[in-house]
Amino acid sequence: MATIFSRIAMGEIPCYKVAENDEFFAFLDINPIQKGHTLVIPKEEVDYLFDIDDEKLGRMMVFAKQVAAQIKSKMGCRRVAVVVLGLEVPHAHIHLIPINEEKDVDFKVKQQLSEDEFKLIAEQIKL
Amino acid sequence: MATIFSRIAMGEIPCYKVAENDEFFAFLDINPIQKGHTLVIPKEEVDYLFDIDDEKLGRMMVFAKQVAAQIKSKMGCRRVAVVVLGLEVPHAHIHLIPINEEKDVDFKVKQQLSEDEFKLIAEQIKL
Repeated sequence: MATIFSRIAMGEIPCYKVAENDEFFAFLDINPIQKGHTLVIPKEEVDYLFDIDDEKLGRMMVFAKQVAAQIKSKMGCRRVAVVVLGLEVPHAHIHLIPINEEKDVDFKVKQQLSEDEFKLIAEQIKL
Repeated sequence: MATIFSRIAMGEIPCYKVAENDEFFAFLDINPIQKGHTLVIPKEEVDYLFDIDDEKLGRMMVFAKQVAAQIKSKMGCRRVAVVVLGLEVPHAHIHLIPINEEKDVDFKVKQQLSEDEFKLIAEQIKL
């Protein structure tokens, strides 16, 4: 069965899309810990990030770098944190989180955003 | 002035080394949040991970993947989390953290390890 992230990338489940190419897809985390919190996934289903073959893993980081540059530019943060935990959804995903302080990465604290806010943020950071 | 991480990579400051090649260096975090918590750095000083050029960034992730495979195999964890925050030391570094649950990534909780324990862990996961 397709993972929820595959179904998002295929357009079967709606999302706030940020960027896409042949191999990768980026969209806003629906439970963001900061405004602009984005997920980067490979379109092909792979459970664990480090099971992705070397060359594709490299390309995924370059894609994430491009998305992060947009986030940094548009959200006005000091850094874009990179976090891969990989225990919730069995489809490798990189969290890109705009931060100003290290404590801004706290997965227990979620931002409540309206649909309009999500749309506006996705529009701002869209590649 | 050289960053503390450059001085570690050059051997000026002692560390528990895990892996090294021409471009990258991996060593145990001296304030680990889990046993086996390792830092991966480029030898060349770059403050922000995403300022590393595309090809080298790809190679850095492949190097991190190799180190993570060792950590996973030797520390018996479910996953090796990847975290880049980048606000403390102005030298890009990837945290590789063995985890069994998402809550195992908590930078406020530090493990107290003896020198012998650090040595043993570095020996175990050494590439």
